[in-house]
Amino acid sequence: MAINFGNFFNSGSKKSKLGDFQDLEHVDGVSISTTSANLYNNERDDLVMFYFRKGAEHASVYTQSKIISENIKWNLNLKNKKINALLINTRNANVFTGKKGYQGLKDIAEELSARLSEKQKKDEEKPAKIKPNEILFGCTGTIGEKFPTEKIKKNISELVDKIKYTQNKYIWTKAALGIMTTDLVPKLAMEECKIGNANIKIYGIAKGSGMIFPNMATTLGFIFTDANISSNVLQKLLRKNIETTFNAITCDGDTSTNDMVSIFSTGIAKNHKIKNINDLKIKDFNIALHSVLLNLAKRVAADGEGASKFITVCVKNAKTQEDAKKVAFSIANSPLVKTAIAGEDCNFGRVLMAIGKSDVNINLNKLLIKFGDIKIVEKGQLSNLYNEDEAKEYMKNEKIELYIDLGIGQKSFEVYSMDFTKKYIEINADYRT
Amino acid sequence: MAINFGNFFNSGSKKSKLGDFQDLEHVDGVSISTTSANLYNNERDDLVMFYFRKGAEHASVYTQSKIISENIKWNLNLKNKKINALLINTRNANVFTGKKGYQGLKDIAEELSARLSEKQKKDEEKPAKIKPNEILFGCTGTIGEKFPTEKIKKNISELVDKIKYTQNKYIWTKAALGIMTTDLVPKLAMEECKIGNANIKIYGIAKGSGMIFPNMATTLGFIFTDANISSNVLQKLLRKNIETTFNAITCDGDTSTNDMVSIFSTGIAKNHKIKNINDLKIKDFNIALHSVLLNLAKRVAADGEGASKFITVCVKNAKTQEDAKKVAFSIANSPLVKTAIAGEDCNFGRVLMAIGKSDVNINLNKLLIKFGDIKIVEKGQLSNLYNEDEAKEYMKNEKIELYIDLGIGQKSFEVYSMDFTKKYIEINADYRT
Repeated sequence: MAINFGNFFNSGSKKSKLGDFQDLEHVDGVSISTTSANLYNNERDDLVMFYFRKGAEHASVYTQSKIISENIKWNLNLKNKKINALLINTRNANVFTGKKGYQGLKDIAEELSARLSEKQKKDEEKPAKIKPNEILFGCTGTIGEKFPTEKIKKNISELVDKIKYTQNKYIWTKAALGIMTTDLVPKLAMEECKIGNANIKIYGIAKGSGMIFPNMATTLGFIFTDANISSNVLQKLLRKNIETTFNAITCDGDTSTNDMVSIFSTGIAKNHKIKNINDLKIKDFNIALHSVLLNLAKRVAADGEGASKFITVCVKNAKTQEDAKKVAFSIANSPLVKTAIAGEDCNFGRVLMAIGKSDVNINLNKLLIKFGDIKIVEKGQLSNLYNEDEAKEYMKNEKIELYIDLGIGQKSFEVYSMDFTKKYIEINADYRT
Repeated sequence: MAINFGNFFNSGSKKSKLGDFQDLEHVDGVSISTTSANLYNNERDDLVMFYFRKGAEHASVYTQSKIISENIKWNLNLKNKKINALLINTRNANVFTGKKGYQGLKDIAEELSARLSEKQKKDEEKPAKIKPNEILFGCTGTIGEKFPTEKIKKNISELVDKIKYTQNKYIWTKAALGIMTTDLVPKLAMEECKIGNANIKIYGIAKGSGMIFPNMATTLGFIFTDANISSNVLQKLLRKNIETTFNAITCDGDTSTNDMVSIFSTGIAKNHKIKNINDLKIKDFNIALHSVLLNLAKRVAADGEGASKFITVCVKNAKTQEDAKKVAFSIANSPLVKTAIAGEDCNFGRVLMAIGKSDVNINLNKLLIKFGDIKIVEKGQLSNLYNEDEAKEYMKNEKIELYIDLGIGQKSFEVYSMDFTKKYIEINADYRT
């Protein structure tokens, strides 16, 4: 469970299955601090704070689960969209903790807002009084355990003391490491774009990967930009772009009680404020935001528990996007497909099975299946070009692409996933034995 | 892959996780013969024939997959409901075999009906001419491989020569073994009941368990009775009873292209023929049929690939049966719940997660969760009586019962499943390496 930060920084390795990490530097108006509240009974960082000294516009999307964590309830109750800080803790999901879990967040928000108000007085020309309901929370970890309010509260002053107004790649990596649970690698991504003449940065971190108690791996994603965009537009941009990014990944088809993806804009880039989703000036921003979200989402899928391979399932030419999505997820969630890929078995029979069970009407005679560039099924028959040895060779890759052309429409959907290995069972079954 | 029949018969062990096998003897009008067509390149039985010398009324339910095997297409095309024989082959699913796969069945049906017609002439006072479209097929095995028409055809005479008119427990067990693929134990069940004054037998065999190529484990179930019931009523009885039996089991949420459950009634018991589903005289038969189907379905779930534990998920007091079913399957199909149970971890957090993601509206304050008799969650809170040591002890059992009371309605649904072990991954990933 413990993550050896020393090793990560010293190994010199910044590789994941998806290639090198990008170096994140500074986004105007965003400060980061991290500390250990000893939640894991060791010194790893388990509290990560993002502080917006001038405040930030904000939008979030949350888990669709009918059972949600206390912090998501807290976040949903915030009336004003202006946020001054985001506090994330690991080790405890604050789920099934009832009124005490919620009260804990209130206590921490009061402490944090008081400390930040003091800091405003010290550092700012026009100090703001920061209110508890300007604090947003992210929680991830065990379900049903008492929320460690006191342990966290005791460390708030230190978090505030550590705030620096210029960030660098080390503090971003520490933040990405600090929100990890069973993740093996931190997840960071960035893009730059323009809104009008203003140069805009979009930075993001995330953690995975579809699991909860006792192995604690809610999906969390946090995006930070210096662009000047209203929270209303942020919400629309996030909703629109989440569908084909964070909502297009699956590890095991399970959903956490704590999933959240948030975006914060500090507005310091001083572009003319975007208040309308149809404003043509956000075209580039929209593309760059999608790219950051997709990059992070893929990293979450690639680091799914026990994963040995990163899988892309691309379904083309369905009648509706909904149909394409159903077929893609039916394949990506199938334990039989996922175990076959783990075994490097070019098992198109299981892909066929998963297409068949997806409850989407297909025309077998128009079906095309490729694994990478290798044509396997064409017009509903085994392709004449199919060579099993070539396919076997392909299955040895770390990235596997399944390409399904239904040939009956024009809509498509792409899903990102990982394989199912013995390691997955080990992590999730043998953990306490 | 090869099943050692000798071992099974000699071991003296007739135990499965669900207890002893029942001994099936004779059902009037049903003859069984089995042989090896060398489909596995060894001598295990791979062809099983049920012959109805006086014909049988028949009804079937088939896979809901949009991609179906050639034998299911054949069966759906049969116009008349009177059946004279059922032929089941293993090793080849006859899926994705196109026109040749279908033509193969036609060739075999012609050969078999000709041989059976000859036998009728020899043995019967009023010999019937048996037609190819009075033959039903069950296929299970690899998808996308050439269907071995010639190998099967060559063995038809032997199957017909071997027919005996009195059956015993050995031939029933041979039949149940002969239709197995990756199953570890044969699955047999029986009940006796009355229709009016007539004594009725209901016998059945089945195989599991949710998997296909290359591990070949379609679900097949075949029920045989001497009752005199019209095919129309059989169809209604089967549809009604399948919902809470074969449609209430899940191994990995995957669906085969070949699933089928059929019932055959020879009518020799001479009860007054049942032609109406509302006839009160079939009340007992209905109960006994449900019992046979449930018994077989549970055996299929208990023998799911790699299973170490048999899991019952009972959801009570939902608003609708559909809701209860959704919650039950969400739990039973969750890889996280299944791996936790494999690890003997009393992980109610994952059960909560699975309830939450089922998309059913619940009232957390009314939720009750028990593992066996151990109360864990009550009124949405961890029960005061909850003792983790006691729960850990319970998780060592081979049969695990998860009991979820939603407390917001009166409808319930029960689902049967197995755990997810490293063995599952081994069977499905490492098979060819």
